Amino acid sequence: MEISALQKARYEYRPKLPACLAGSMHDIAIETGGAAEAVSDRDELKKIFKHTYGKPLITFSKGDNKQTNREIKAGVILSGGQAPGGHNVIAGLYDGLQKWNPGSTLYGFLDGPKGLIKNKTTILTGEIVDAYRNTGGFDIIGSGRDKIEKPEEFAASLKTAKTLGLNAVVIIGGDDSNTNAALLAEYFIEQGSDIQVIGCPKTIDGDLKNEYIETSFGFDTACKTYSELIGNIMRDANSSKKYWHFIKLMGRAASHIALECALQTQPNVCLISEEIEEKKISLNQVVDIICDSIIKRAENGDNFGVVLIPEGLVEFIPEIKQVINEINDAIARDRENFSKVGSFIDQLYWFSMRISEVSYRILSALPPEIGMEFLMDRDPHGNVQVSRIQTEKLLIGMVEKKLKTLKDEKKFIGSFCAMGHFFGYEGRCAFPSNFDSDYCYSLGLSASVLIASGLTGYLACVRNLVAPPDEWIAGGVPLTMMMNLEQRRGAKKPVIRKALVELSGSPFKSYKSLRDTWLVTTSFCVPGAIQYFGPPEICDQPPLTLQLEKNKKE
Amino acid sequence: MEISALQKARYEYRPKLPACLAGSMHDIAIETGGAAEAVSDRDELKKIFKHTYGKPLITFSKGDNKQTNREIKAGVILSGGQAPGGHNVIAGLYDGLQKWNPGSTLYGFLDGPKGLIKNKTTILTGEIVDAYRNTGGFDIIGSGRDKIEKPEEFAASLKTAKTLGLNAVVIIGGDDSNTNAALLAEYFIEQGSDIQVIGCPKTIDGDLKNEYIETSFGFDTACKTYSELIGNIMRDANSSKKYWHFIKLMGRAASHIALECALQTQPNVCLISEEIEEKKISLNQVVDIICDSIIKRAENGDNFGVVLIPEGLVEFIPEIKQVINEINDAIARDRENFSKVGSFIDQLYWFSMRISEVSYRILSALPPEIGMEFLMDRDPHGNVQVSRIQTEKLLIGMVEKKLKTLKDEKKFIGSFCAMGHFFGYEGRCAFPSNFDSDYCYSLGLSASVLIASGLTGYLACVRNLVAPPDEWIAGGVPLTMMMNLEQRRGAKKPVIRKALVELSGSPFKSYKSLRDTWLVTTSFCVPGAIQYFGPPEICDQPPLTLQLEKNKKE
Repeated sequence: MEISALQKARYEYRPKLPACLAGSMHDIAIETGGAAEAVSDRDELKKIFKHTYGKPLITFSKGDNKQTNREIKAGVILSGGQAPGGHNVIAGLYDGLQKWNPGSTLYGFLDGPKGLIKNKTTILTGEIVDAYRNTGGFDIIGSGRDKIEKPEEFAASLKTAKTLGLNAVVIIGGDDSNTNAALLAEYFIEQGSDIQVIGCPKTIDGDLKNEYIETSFGFDTACKTYSELIGNIMRDANSSKKYWHFIKLMGRAASHIALECALQTQPNVCLISEEIEEKKISLNQVVDIICDSIIKRAENGDNFGVVLIPEGLVEFIPEIKQVINEINDAIARDRENFSKVGSFIDQLYWFSMRISEVSYRILSALPPEIGMEFLMDRDPHGNVQVSRIQTEKLLIGMVEKKLKTLKDEKKFIGSFCAMGHFFGYEGRCAFPSNFDSDYCYSLGLSASVLIASGLTGYLACVRNLVAPPDEWIAGGVPLTMMMNLEQRRGAKKPVIRKALVELSGSPFKSYKSLRDTWLVTTSFCVPGAIQYFGPPEICDQPPLTLQLEKNKKE
Repeated sequence: MEISALQKARYEYRPKLPACLAGSMHDIAIETGGAAEAVSDRDELKKIFKHTYGKPLITFSKGDNKQTNREIKAGVILSGGQAPGGHNVIAGLYDGLQKWNPGSTLYGFLDGPKGLIKNKTTILTGEIVDAYRNTGGFDIIGSGRDKIEKPEEFAASLKTAKTLGLNAVVIIGGDDSNTNAALLAEYFIEQGSDIQVIGCPKTIDGDLKNEYIETSFGFDTACKTYSELIGNIMRDANSSKKYWHFIKLMGRAASHIALECALQTQPNVCLISEEIEEKKISLNQVVDIICDSIIKRAENGDNFGVVLIPEGLVEFIPEIKQVINEINDAIARDRENFSKVGSFIDQLYWFSMRISEVSYRILSALPPEIGMEFLMDRDPHGNVQVSRIQTEKLLIGMVEKKLKTLKDEKKFIGSFCAMGHFFGYEGRCAFPSNFDSDYCYSLGLSASVLIASGLTGYLACVRNLVAPPDEWIAGGVPLTMMMNLEQRRGAKKPVIRKALVELSGSPFKSYKSLRDTWLVTTSFCVPGAIQYFGPPEICDQPPLTLQLEKNKKE
């Protein structure tokens, strides 16, 4: 990799710190709250996490740290999809350990959890860490999606940690990876080891969030990058006045990214999967909502607009979910026979005899390009790859069809020309915003304090994020506190609950109160590219959804 | 539209100016060079442009302007696709006219050239102009792609200009629009009118460029926005190490954008249409070039990479050009019969009997999704819509096929998983970079000086752009100087020559000297988002291609 001018300048950025983390490590006192309980399934969780359940909430404050400043050996893992700021978590962790004792060592596990299982590491020196400060990406040590699941993988992980003589393992990841961190912490104690495990809340999707974790890192930068692009496209639409842009946004099942981007850019329509599921809104009704905006705007002479679509939408639309399930089942029942069916047309015919009439009617009515994706783009198990379905094109096709009918009936007087976009990979590795740079560095520092304090099974936690950084509250939350039991592959498993958009929360309610206006008028807002050096109202703002959530609480 | 924090801050930006334009308008002297000649077809051009051919090159310098400071009425048109900085041209024009005489009036013609034809205008007040300073988009008055072509359209344009009592019309546009400006200037004189016509060089594509026009405005901002996204994706690829990203970039026929972005980001492969045409590289050879990179990188364990593809590529690949032509011809010969052919499969069959065997073999070998685009996505004349063909997916499909064969032959040992992207609309309306903000404002000011000096048939021109702005040279170039005759719809027409990438130019040569390394190694560079407030090496750099062109000349 070459170093750009911006990257060079970003090396010099010094993240702003919470007051409690700003001084010497020995001036950080550990305040403990009462024993923390999980939100549900407490008895079962207590049984699974015999040694790590019921630990107290930790808050750092100015005072005396009681620990001796021993040398610490820690290893760090980047797990799952990239999120801007991961490098700063590592920089904060590194600096914290060095401040604690300059003889401390930080290992980086290569390419995700498998680095721990297979003992693939690199020693992270000051020189290496400096080359990644305030940069995007996870390329300092690479990332991976493997999980530590099987007994032999747990055993191998312990063996690696012992071989390296580690005091602690830090896992930077999303809900799944932190569930893994909790299980690993419990396993280490179970095996008589005192090696600690600490997690850090990462994911651009924003679905790792609860009372103590206000937001996962990377969400801010990703949303600001997508909002830059959406805003630019809006300005384009408002200039040429002839295109409707259907923009799908990454974010897996949750619609947090779509909602944040909607609040930042004010599109004509933003679909929220959680609302669609809750209200059982059908595909035709979704099409009607979009057509409603198109028709009303056309009446004002505005034959252009912007629609935001969350990545996971199709899975929340009841009848599409049904089609997908029936296709998957039909293939599972008769895999061998199906493998001999060649072309799209032949496949369509094959399914016509194997899925319900309703589902077949939906499948064959889809734009051919999309139908093909349903049938031909399957994963190794033969399942439809939902994330690869071009929902934006599906909706464009269906809206076009509907408008044609409405035009014939003289209920639509405008013109409709649409373009589809998908934004995802563009935002996962952007240079972290100042907010994410500051937040991540504090998370890394916090992880180092949790390690130095001999704690395990904790998620590093920095709160009060809508206040200026020196008022941020840092500490740790017991991982088990965020867990519940969920059905996974036929068995009840302890997992960190995925936070979806709450329809009763202020971000959604704020959007809801504005969307009828946006549906018709051109209320677009163009935030522009993320700025790192300008005035604080441009450079240092936390996500809008977070501001709405916190301001309501206060 | 709502006003974002960045937009508010950008209102305050004061564009940097060439020394000659910085003071009072009355201190700008007009220096004239010798009579300017066109590069070719001089005699024919002389006949077409009886009154405007052979005018001198104009350069502004510090001195005395001989003109009296009369009130000026001017009208301005934004023509064609959006380019960042258009609003600053208008702001410069407005400020220049006001400085000349505060009683001057600037009309904005609405939604492109048709605003002039149909006399649809708005008066641009200081308040309106202030709300668009240093912003992207053309939404201040809208844009349009109509042309002033028919005799009655020329007559209507003159009528509007006379009705409004205009002294001048300013056309902000690309090669076509400025060809139009030249014809309009000539027509006005022919009709005994002294209404002046001035052009301004706009287009993100970078193909309006010659000895005097170093770059068109918007190119810099668009390329920097695309490079931001490409760089982010590169960092993503280098973190997860499992995807090849095929990125198509806007830019019509010319590959300037792809080349500039390649120099900024250093991808593994960047295809240059001009080279492919010159060397008659076939589609299979293009696929081989990409596979070569994939195979070599896989041997180093790098199963990821980035390929840049210029928008116009397919039209430059000989055999694809042939397929498109044969499809267009077949439909033109038998339009009625074809309109009855329904599905994709039926259409494929229909063509099998009407196009050459070679072309049919290519067509039916295309990935079905792409074949469908060739056959089903046609413009109102029945022609294949080349710009809508997903070249990135076409290449992914063909590369996949080829690698499968190579894998069977044990010539490819890696894995290949690819993703396609198209960047275009994301960059056309971004907030203009400082470079584009400065350049455009100077272009607008220059246009006002050309008007005040009574000149017509000129393109506003600001040169020496790689030097600091106060050393920039401003003036005007006779539009006819950039023209030649080209075949258009069966007749020879005067047009401004489109500048394609020169294979003997330093930007391409620089790329060529580096690409063998980039093909194998990970030399990615991540420029990050456009910055407006930071250090000059980040915020004020002209395009790299321009720097290479100028530094070589000097």
